[in-house]
Amino acid sequence: MKTKILTLLKNTDSYLSGQDLCNQFGVSRTAVWKAINQLKEEGYVIEAVPNKGYSLKECPDVLAYSEIKSVLTSKWAGQELFCFDTIDSTNTKAKQLAEEGANHGALVVSDNQSGGKGRRGRSWESPVSTGIFMTLILKPSLNPSDASMLTLVMAIAVAKACNKLTKDSCFIKWPNDIVLNRKKICGILTEMSAEMDYINHIVIGIGINVNMDTFQNELKEKATSIKIENGYPVKRAELINQVMLCFEEEYEIFMMHHTLEAQKERYNNMLVSLDKEVVIMEPSKEFIGIARGINSKGELMVEKEDGQMMAIYAGEVSVRGIYGYV
Amino acid sequence: MKTKILTLLKNTDSYLSGQDLCNQFGVSRTAVWKAINQLKEEGYVIEAVPNKGYSLKECPDVLAYSEIKSVLTSKWAGQELFCFDTIDSTNTKAKQLAEEGANHGALVVSDNQSGGKGRRGRSWESPVSTGIFMTLILKPSLNPSDASMLTLVMAIAVAKACNKLTKDSCFIKWPNDIVLNRKKICGILTEMSAEMDYINHIVIGIGINVNMDTFQNELKEKATSIKIENGYPVKRAELINQVMLCFEEEYEIFMMHHTLEAQKERYNNMLVSLDKEVVIMEPSKEFIGIARGINSKGELMVEKEDGQMMAIYAGEVSVRGIYGYV
Repeated sequence: MKTKILTLLKNTDSYLSGQDLCNQFGVSRTAVWKAINQLKEEGYVIEAVPNKGYSLKECPDVLAYSEIKSVLTSKWAGQELFCFDTIDSTNTKAKQLAEEGANHGALVVSDNQSGGKGRRGRSWESPVSTGIFMTLILKPSLNPSDASMLTLVMAIAVAKACNKLTKDSCFIKWPNDIVLNRKKICGILTEMSAEMDYINHIVIGIGINVNMDTFQNELKEKATSIKIENGYPVKRAELINQVMLCFEEEYEIFMMHHTLEAQKERYNNMLVSLDKEVVIMEPSKEFIGIARGINSKGELMVEKEDGQMMAIYAGEVSVRGIYGYV
Repeated sequence: MKTKILTLLKNTDSYLSGQDLCNQFGVSRTAVWKAINQLKEEGYVIEAVPNKGYSLKECPDVLAYSEIKSVLTSKWAGQELFCFDTIDSTNTKAKQLAEEGANHGALVVSDNQSGGKGRRGRSWESPVSTGIFMTLILKPSLNPSDASMLTLVMAIAVAKACNKLTKDSCFIKWPNDIVLNRKKICGILTEMSAEMDYINHIVIGIGINVNMDTFQNELKEKATSIKIENGYPVKRAELINQVMLCFEEEYEIFMMHHTLEAQKERYNNMLVSLDKEVVIMEPSKEFIGIARGINSKGELMVEKEDGQMMAIYAGEVSVRGIYGYV
């Protein structure tokens, strides 16, 4: 009921009468009053005016179940929702929930991560109540060999969602980072559980630097937050909603043909290194080329010095700009 | 110590002196006597002759830790061993253990499965103390897209191991079954947890019909056991050892080049449908062709009626003989 009251409060310009709430939910005035008080304790500023009712004046930036649910306008992505204050890793939790029967579209969100994972088990800094740490569970009818493209689909969605807040200043660093003013604001980590020819489930973990004020030491050079670049904070729950909405749209396009053919132009328009020199780092050697964008399989096409085109798969290879991270 | 005493007993033709055992393990006569008694309770027939010592006269067909360890001569496959009397599914347990840090080569064995899984979640009959239900955990440096070939590597290993007991009467039904006299004795279910370009772990589940006396109803037409075909039972722990030894050998060959090039001839020589007519069942249609063996990627090459060769991937397609299961 708390979630429903909050949703009503958010969608009303004027006042909500206490008696109307009682009638609507079939509960007592005391029950409504308790729910309102709980919301106040969570940081919502709710004005109560006699003979008029309740009015929401201010929302805190929390990632509680009620808050996210009250702003979530997606069809399926995130509608089954699991929220945590702190968690080891949202990917680990999501894999466990998926094994136990969580459905396609279920979302795990945490205000903080104590053991956040970057690619290949690298650690990932997770300060309290400033970032978004979430993992979306998917159970698509898809060949396991096509699953890696979903990372790029999510990259488009996150970049689009962040661009609504940053006047189109966000770009994609192939394959799975989002950068703002040439510094990282988001990483995406996709993991899959599959049989030979059948996907059990996919989890897509997303970490977004939203409201951090500062980064330590060497991270300072490479990472930033939306708040640092914008100069003002952002409501994280609303950004989650935007990411879910954008992902639903992009996912449906991708699932029509299981290729990125219809999306590669959009991806490439946001590619930070498009038509720029990049360093391709293979395990044994490095070389320089010009990034020409992804192909329909999500591989990065790089033009070598001799004019030859080369398709880079996100395997043992990493790509950076010639002057640093991007 | 029980495992060590059992191993010594198995490797001695004559008698093991109780005093020698005490000296070797630095324990009391009582401790040795207790371990011997535990083994007797588990079904081992151990003769104790005054002034000579202990001699093992008979081994039960159990899948206990001590029994498997005492016969296991592999280098790494199965040396980290987890044994259960009964378990939901060895694949599910293995995935959990792999997440929690079980190493490459760890093996989960159960005497019985209460929720055994076939491909795509189909159920799989698991009677008590007659079958082998085991799952091998692997953490290879391998591209996720190459992982499905490991099912075929295991198929070669299981077929070779079973052939030592069945005078080379076992064949492979592409991609992941072993048949004996045209009936199924083994299914293999490979599952993978992976990032885009990095395998977290692979689990290969193996169910072998070893000592079943009969199968019910429609299964009778399609399934058999080694005991039914041979007319006498087999020691399951010894078969596990043979599978581990054969797998180690085949795995090392496969991992040299990550293709089945060096093994496809061997696989094809055991392919039950080689040069025979098969029915290819696609989701929307069926057609008949002649199976010409696998290629180096593990796809089944089928010659169509017009002479054209077609590579079948173990996706939505299944293959059967024109007269039934094989």
